[in-house]
Amino acid sequence: MKIGIIGGSGYIGGELLRILLLHPKVEVTAVVSRQYAGEYLYRVKPNLRKQTTLKFVPLEIEYLKKNCDLVFTATPHGATVNLASKLLEAGLKVIDMSADFRLKNPADYEKWYGWKHSNPSLLGEAVYGLPEFHREEIRKARLIACPGCMATVTILSLAPVVKAGVVEKDRIVVDAKIGSSGGGSAPSPASHHSERFGGVRVYNVFGHRHIAEIEQELNALAEEPVTISFTPHAVNMVRGILATSHVFLKKDLTVPDVWRLYRSLYQNEPFVRLVRENKGLYRLPNPNIVIGSNYCDIGFELDNHVNRMIILAAIDNLVKGAAGQGVQCLNILLGIDERTGLEVQGFHPM
Amino acid sequence: MKIGIIGGSGYIGGELLRILLLHPKVEVTAVVSRQYAGEYLYRVKPNLRKQTTLKFVPLEIEYLKKNCDLVFTATPHGATVNLASKLLEAGLKVIDMSADFRLKNPADYEKWYGWKHSNPSLLGEAVYGLPEFHREEIRKARLIACPGCMATVTILSLAPVVKAGVVEKDRIVVDAKIGSSGGGSAPSPASHHSERFGGVRVYNVFGHRHIAEIEQELNALAEEPVTISFTPHAVNMVRGILATSHVFLKKDLTVPDVWRLYRSLYQNEPFVRLVRENKGLYRLPNPNIVIGSNYCDIGFELDNHVNRMIILAAIDNLVKGAAGQGVQCLNILLGIDERTGLEVQGFHPM
Amino acid sequence: MKIGIIGGSGYIGGELLRILLLHPKVEVTAVVSRQYAGEYLYRVKPNLRKQTTLKFVPLEIEYLKKNCDLVFTATPHGATVNLASKLLEAGLKVIDMSADFRLKNPADYEKWYGWKHSNPSLLGEAVYGLPEFHREEIRKARLIACPGCMATVTILSLAPVVKAGVVEKDRIVVDAKIGSSGGGSAPSPASHHSERFGGVRVYNVFGHRHIAEIEQELNALAEEPVTISFTPHAVNMVRGILATSHVFLKKDLTVPDVWRLYRSLYQNEPFVRLVRENKGLYRLPNPNIVIGSNYCDIGFELDNHVNRMIILAAIDNLVKGAAGQGVQCLNILLGIDERTGLEVQGFHPM
Amino acid sequence: MKIGIIGGSGYIGGELLRILLLHPKVEVTAVVSRQYAGEYLYRVKPNLRKQTTLKFVPLEIEYLKKNCDLVFTATPHGATVNLASKLLEAGLKVIDMSADFRLKNPADYEKWYGWKHSNPSLLGEAVYGLPEFHREEIRKARLIACPGCMATVTILSLAPVVKAGVVEKDRIVVDAKIGSSGGGSAPSPASHHSERFGGVRVYNVFGHRHIAEIEQELNALAEEPVTISFTPHAVNMVRGILATSHVFLKKDLTVPDVWRLYRSLYQNEPFVRLVRENKGLYRLPNPNIVIGSNYCDIGFELDNHVNRMIILAAIDNLVKGAAGQGVQCLNILLGIDERTGLEVQGFHPM
Repeated sequence: MKIGIIGGSGYIGGELLRILLLHPKVEVTAVVSRQYAGEYLYRVKPNLRKQTTLKFVPLEIEYLKKNCDLVFTATPHGATVNLASKLLEAGLKVIDMSADFRLKNPADYEKWYGWKHSNPSLLGEAVYGLPEFHREEIRKARLIACPGCMATVTILSLAPVVKAGVVEKDRIVVDAKIGSSGGGSAPSPASHHSERFGGVRVYNVFGHRHIAEIEQELNALAEEPVTISFTPHAVNMVRGILATSHVFLKKDLTVPDVWRLYRSLYQNEPFVRLVRENKGLYRLPNPNIVIGSNYCDIGFELDNHVNRMIILAAIDNLVKGAAGQGVQCLNILLGIDERTGLEVQGFHPM
Repeated sequence: MKIGIIGGSGYIGGELLRILLLHPKVEVTAVVSRQYAGEYLYRVKPNLRKQTTLKFVPLEIEYLKKNCDLVFTATPHGATVNLASKLLEAGLKVIDMSADFRLKNPADYEKWYGWKHSNPSLLGEAVYGLPEFHREEIRKARLIACPGCMATVTILSLAPVVKAGVVEKDRIVVDAKIGSSGGGSAPSPASHHSERFGGVRVYNVFGHRHIAEIEQELNALAEEPVTISFTPHAVNMVRGILATSHVFLKKDLTVPDVWRLYRSLYQNEPFVRLVRENKGLYRLPNPNIVIGSNYCDIGFELDNHVNRMIILAAIDNLVKGAAGQGVQCLNILLGIDERTGLEVQGFHPM
Repeated sequence: MKIGIIGGSGYIGGELLRILLLHPKVEVTAVVSRQYAGEYLYRVKPNLRKQTTLKFVPLEIEYLKKNCDLVFTATPHGATVNLASKLLEAGLKVIDMSADFRLKNPADYEKWYGWKHSNPSLLGEAVYGLPEFHREEIRKARLIACPGCMATVTILSLAPVVKAGVVEKDRIVVDAKIGSSGGGSAPSPASHHSERFGGVRVYNVFGHRHIAEIEQELNALAEEPVTISFTPHAVNMVRGILATSHVFLKKDLTVPDVWRLYRSLYQNEPFVRLVRENKGLYRLPNPNIVIGSNYCDIGFELDNHVNRMIILAAIDNLVKGAAGQGVQCLNILLGIDERTGLEVQGFHPM
Repeated sequence: MKIGIIGGSGYIGGELLRILLLHPKVEVTAVVSRQYAGEYLYRVKPNLRKQTTLKFVPLEIEYLKKNCDLVFTATPHGATVNLASKLLEAGLKVIDMSADFRLKNPADYEKWYGWKHSNPSLLGEAVYGLPEFHREEIRKARLIACPGCMATVTILSLAPVVKAGVVEKDRIVVDAKIGSSGGGSAPSPASHHSERFGGVRVYNVFGHRHIAEIEQELNALAEEPVTISFTPHAVNMVRGILATSHVFLKKDLTVPDVWRLYRSLYQNEPFVRLVRENKGLYRLPNPNIVIGSNYCDIGFELDNHVNRMIILAAIDNLVKGAAGQGVQCLNILLGIDERTGLEVQGFHPM
């Protein structure tokens, strides 16, 4: 299959390239960047030196139509609605890395993003690209909306207990810690090394936009509406998210009870690992073990003192939280082993 | 006043030295270290080079009795009970940096620390050294138990809303992020740079010992028992704690309402700063702004989506969380300006 | 003495504020920032909250003339020539943190900076503000040109051996490692956390502008021209420089010989520490011990294998490399103890 | 081919596992660890979870003889001499990651390592496993001594100019910066996060043991003895080395001249990349681009001011500096594409 990438110069585009250039079943045939059109990829993505002699091309739908079967859109939120529409009209399949097709209810775009969706009919067709819960739809999709990184790790953390109805659905606290790559490749005061290094900065204390898709997906799994108390923190690392979910139990659960809930959903999932050892530094998930890989590591503890359960989950925000998940969807579309091209495990130490 | 420090070679002992060597109203006359007795302080505390020609001395109560009026004990939990008893018998005042006299109820030592307290009668006399709530008792104390770092930042965060009875008292989630200095100066797998760097590691997921003192103090302020859901995370920084408290409101509160609660307790406090700006990178507390200082920065947000309030608080765990708070207590004891010797503000950038 | 600061919103301006607001012999009366005029200092310098209620003012020479005796100019290279001229005409003393008055030979500005100096007559009057070598001139100066951070640490490293004529003067290699604050407070691709973190980036591989002032000062100390092979590296820290000088000896030297050379120049210097222990982690200089302080730590080793001497020197680039050195000059001007206001020692750990 | 790994629990052993478990032409059949025998690999190497169900086994030569064709020894320096001898006697091939067979002259072990080599006859047989210079010998070797990480990056940096005789051979300064993983997986004061973070620590200021192998290899390329002035620095990163070589030219060279020297040796090398762009953040090598890959990136600048050439080279110390290079040697032995199993390129950002 011939693949195009629009927005190839950003961090998610670069990560798609890192994975797809070595993918045995696809060929990258077009990498679009307005800013760098005409330049070798490795000038902007120095890690790709000696891996490819491709050059960035300008954005031309005709060119993509001729040279590609499927296009990844790694373009800014809001700017992708029209672009994806055109690509679909040109007969291309689209895997969209932006937020523009993740929400089913058009009103949610006004509420959470502050703009009116210009192609609401496509929202019905778009498939939310979280393989663990939408594998069958992905297989037949023409337009896949790849989930947000925070949404991926949060939904995978909470789905088993929310689905089972064992937790208080309006007291779910998710406290996330994320590396600087989550903010993208454009310099800003918040990403200035002297300010970011050695601190912890809370941001979007409430109202993070990924809450919309988290609640959409969890509501679909539960029997009653779920509200999420989500707060992210920028910490001193580049890649990775650790999401700590604090939930309160409606009834007593034992450790084996919880294991059963998580295993029943995830035991056959190639990229979810349940991590709960008795000892060692890595007895629970830590993002520095999954960096570079497509794994989502999930573990938990029960706190009898307050009838609380703590769920820990770690992903690489650029892989399982973006490009890796996109490729997992692509593999499902292609009907091949989901792990193809995603064999890189994490590093230790990283 | 002549001051002795026992346990001068650790991080808290070193921080006491950094502050007290420049303190205009006291003289450090004895610094005890079994391991380094006979060596110059600056051999172990290289930052003190050219600041002092003192040498470490061995532990001898007679020597301390002769040369000191007050002794700081920066010694391991459990080992300090007997030591402090002997120092008090020798007529010395004691400011204890360990946990050995923080809890009022002897049974709590068995429950939270796993050992039986050998001098429970002293527990009644010891004063919990959190100036914001025990200033009058500190003034007259013979034995001050300096609070834990996690306890300091959590109690200061929650006291106003717990005291006012406006939050659900059994759904209080405190998610803390702490630097590596909190683990002390002894190397261990968890503090190994290659493992700690670039990750986030949850530890003591439930059952952190500081919960005991947090609940003791908050219960005293509230009208009903409070339970704390506390989970700490080791992040990639050296000094500093950010405590994110997620609480659920029992009634609607506006921002001015919350301001009033916090101002009423803290407006005259020299080391509590209320931080809540409309813009900028530092509109809410961040530990990298308080490093080296004795400040506790506190801010908050209201989340109408889930009737949640998020309280952010930042301290330097070695200063307001340990040595600085000890010196603040000392200043109260001496009847001098609490800020004496604690003028160092944070750095920007750090 | 009443002090003004122009360029108060940058990192060097902020550091001047941190030091001068607590300085017992001066009063900060004007802090100029075009961008933030009218705002409280602590809005931009969050570490100064509760330390001052000053606001930024716009740049008006009349206002400064009326309210100040001396002005620090922490303004961009090239932009300061005219500004300083006006301040001097207004009868103010000036301590300039930029490079605009450091070089004696006007031609050097064309060669190293690429612009023609518009007030060359002032170059003769300006005093190079390195107290260790220009103390007497500083005492009587009207215009002090504060040295560059790289120049400070390099000159202090090499002066004893260059002055003594014991090293090959055209084979002096200085390999420097510096934190991100050296690049200033403006975000840029090079300072983007995701790019800077966890790497080492060489920059200005040859031709760093500080070479001009280093050679100017070392030539004045030596009997023959000295050429410096200087290469800086951006490493993953915020503050601090470690300069590693590799020099080749013209004759055999013993360790006591070298000690004698360094002691003869520095033994009475309040801010130079000679560091060379037999054991321990900090047996040679490391920037993480001097952060926040005005110290320059210097140590050395002899390498018989190649007749090489390695000199290590560490400073905080914002303190001894900028603001602290400026205040040291100010204290000399005022005729008071040079350490006034500069008592903050480094931290351990930092 | 069936592969055993002795010392599988350390960082180099873990890295061998990461690479070899996915290598299409070999099978890992035995992983030895005395400490962890009987435990699943992933308990110690958490990144390998879901990748393998292998367990560590104790050290038994018979077991290895029966189950393996070739064994990697990732065991401590000095302890490997006897172990390798036994493995060879058992008919196994050996790729040794320690220093025990790198030096040809037995006297060098006494000089640089302080112990007498107990099997000097094997030194003659052992092949120095740097493919760029010993490919033919590696192909036929029974015992391969994998080079040290510092030696790899330094030899590759300097070989072209040393071989061509264009630099002063006794004024070669190599100033290296390395991450903490170079110190191994055992906690120590130097690797304690609170001490390592945010500083730069020089160590082995002269006399680093890798100098022995660097000079051995460079002497073999040059016509006259070469002496290396080598000084390493521990910086705040986990993986990676940047080696900055400062050399003085014996005659004038242009940039194309230098290109020719480097291309003539490396243009067909699969894992050496020449990096020298006109612009961009990564115009010269930076370790954060090669992490996880087997690349050695090399670039240079000419400094006319002092007739100096600066060579920059970056590797991942655990990959091209250890495990990756070992696998490259293995591939040569097997007669397959050297890149097999080493396709992982670096990440951006990392």
